[in-house]
Amino acid sequence: MSRSLNLAVIPGDGIGPEVVAQGLKVLNAALPQDVKLETKEYDLGAQRWHRTGETLPDQELEALKGHDAILLGAIGDPSVPSGVLERGLLLKLRFAFDHFINLRPSKLFPNTATPLAGRPDIDFVVVREGTEGPYTGNGGSLRTGTPAEVATEVSVNTAYGVERVVRDAFERANNRPRKKLTLVHKNNVLVYAGHLWKNTFDRVAAEYPEVSTDYLHVDAATIFFVTQPERFDVIVTDNLFGDILTDLAAAVTGGIGLAASGNVNPTGDFPSMFEPVHGSAPDIAGQGKADPTATVLSVALLLRHLGHADRAERIEAAVSADLAERDGTARTTDEIGDALTARVSG
Amino acid sequence: MSRSLNLAVIPGDGIGPEVVAQGLKVLNAALPQDVKLETKEYDLGAQRWHRTGETLPDQELEALKGHDAILLGAIGDPSVPSGVLERGLLLKLRFAFDHFINLRPSKLFPNTATPLAGRPDIDFVVVREGTEGPYTGNGGSLRTGTPAEVATEVSVNTAYGVERVVRDAFERANNRPRKKLTLVHKNNVLVYAGHLWKNTFDRVAAEYPEVSTDYLHVDAATIFFVTQPERFDVIVTDNLFGDILTDLAAAVTGGIGLAASGNVNPTGDFPSMFEPVHGSAPDIAGQGKADPTATVLSVALLLRHLGHADRAERIEAAVSADLAERDGTARTTDEIGDALTARVSG
Ligand SMILES: CC(C)[C@H](C(=O)O)[C@@H](O)C(=O)O
Ligand SMILES: CC(C)[C@H](C(=O)O)[C@@H](O)C(=O)O
Repeated sequence: MSRSLNLAVIPGDGIGPEVVAQGLKVLNAALPQDVKLETKEYDLGAQRWHRTGETLPDQELEALKGHDAILLGAIGDPSVPSGVLERGLLLKLRFAFDHFINLRPSKLFPNTATPLAGRPDIDFVVVREGTEGPYTGNGGSLRTGTPAEVATEVSVNTAYGVERVVRDAFERANNRPRKKLTLVHKNNVLVYAGHLWKNTFDRVAAEYPEVSTDYLHVDAATIFFVTQPERFDVIVTDNLFGDILTDLAAAVTGGIGLAASGNVNPTGDFPSMFEPVHGSAPDIAGQGKADPTATVLSVALLLRHLGHADRAERIEAAVSADLAERDGTARTTDEIGDALTARVSG
Repeated sequence: MSRSLNLAVIPGDGIGPEVVAQGLKVLNAALPQDVKLETKEYDLGAQRWHRTGETLPDQELEALKGHDAILLGAIGDPSVPSGVLERGLLLKLRFAFDHFINLRPSKLFPNTATPLAGRPDIDFVVVREGTEGPYTGNGGSLRTGTPAEVATEVSVNTAYGVERVVRDAFERANNRPRKKLTLVHKNNVLVYAGHLWKNTFDRVAAEYPEVSTDYLHVDAATIFFVTQPERFDVIVTDNLFGDILTDLAAAVTGGIGLAASGNVNPTGDFPSMFEPVHGSAPDIAGQGKADPTATVLSVALLLRHLGHADRAERIEAAVSADLAERDGTARTTDEIGDALTARVSG
């Protein structure tokens, strides 16, 4: 019996296509022999928008639904007004496919530069809510452009949405050796959403007696990210706080060039989407300078999500070994991809 | 002709009273001879709430209005439900007295521990909006406590509110040697508020041709705070982003024990309020372990606000010299306060 992985690929803008090419190389090498990889490319992003004015037509959204998973490079270009591709493509996908788990692991690999003195041991994962909070697009502007303008942004939080992400985070914490879960919010100011998050967290905690829990305000959490990042194991948080914290987490663990992410719908009703946390970096696009490691690590998340945990670990071990042996000589995107592919195959 | 400074003092909870006592000592030493200091203490905070159920009665709010300025220690205790004192006292004061400039300077003093390797040169100030954004208390919860709960938080942004803080930040940037102003927001997702902020910023920028400007998303800003903090001069941002960024800024410049802040109403219609960024730290309260430096630096901000820039500089120089000579032996709250007082007087 042969199996197949029917992957949608959105290379996107800037360095997106370059890093995705390496991700696919490694994916090919990592997949079990009997799994046939089929890929279909989707031309979405800045160029498409410039050409046709479209961000994500219904027909393509429909077609994407048929895939087992999506690999995305990077979306965005300074030539496109801020918000157009974010809301019209990236967030549209996350919302349409109900990616309520935005999974962002942070690990300080050996031999990796960190801005932190003393090289703390960092190995945590942020479980960021992906379909609610201030990301819903709820809000508006009145008397726009006049001195009497009022602009609002509404953070929407539901018991349904909060509970499912909190449960997922407790499951993950329970399956890790340290079994520790931290809720990050700002419940001393955002009291309505904060109470919903905190009450849900405390209620679900009762079902996981082995998981130790704590709570931090988001401002205090940023302090611990730089002074004591080793204290974290699993963090669960709101969409916006998760966005902010995971960039900071990436910065302290060797930079955004190594940060992987998965936009996951654990129900399987829709394909999950895996993407590096970094952007399209148009300034270095096409020069072979981009580090494809974050994309390769996103491929590992993809494989784990699809049930190939052993293959995911193989990729992560390859990245770890590759980083350990980096000696500072510059390598091209392709060279790094080849080195990782060789390790995964070997 | 003799002058007077009629100061309201809110020592507050935990280490608040201890650090405020040192702040007042230094203030006394720093004030010009002919300025008579009159202080009135206000018993507000956790103890008062436990005793009477009150956070900030109208009568006291009214009385506070009559002062030239307010010095606040710290508010909060784990025995009080989250949000009660924040919304009922601290934020109530900031909103009632229209403290639309929340001023938070960050400077890496000599001989000060930073979690950052390589000790970058850090000297910037965050101008945080203080009366709008997600801090307005606008929002609510429907079907609270049920599986069908919906909780919202509304970020309210007005042209009036955004323009006045942006103008203040441009003025400050224009008066600093580097003349650089960075707007931090998240206008690719929070498009309504983001456009208002960005458009206002760009419009006011045209009036300050000598100020160089840039824009960062809040997530990217956290990266630069740890990888390249020396790039910042003045930052202007929203209430919540400012809350998050200034804790991070404090962490990279030697910790929250050194971070000062001013809740400023530049119009003079209401008294401005000065407070250390740190909390009440009940775990070390009453032990003489708290570092009063953040409060002393807040006193410097207070003096500058009241027109005594030379006295403010004297305090800042005293702190700088004191930190430079710290040799790691532990000193009590009182000893640090005395040392700073001696330097300011000397
Ligand atoms: C590009 C932007 C919409 C996105 C977000 O805010 O989620 C990005 O910052 C991320 O973290 O994936
Ligand atoms: C205590 C809290 C309400 C406050 C805030 O969020 O503004 C604090 O974190 C601060 O930064 O002064």
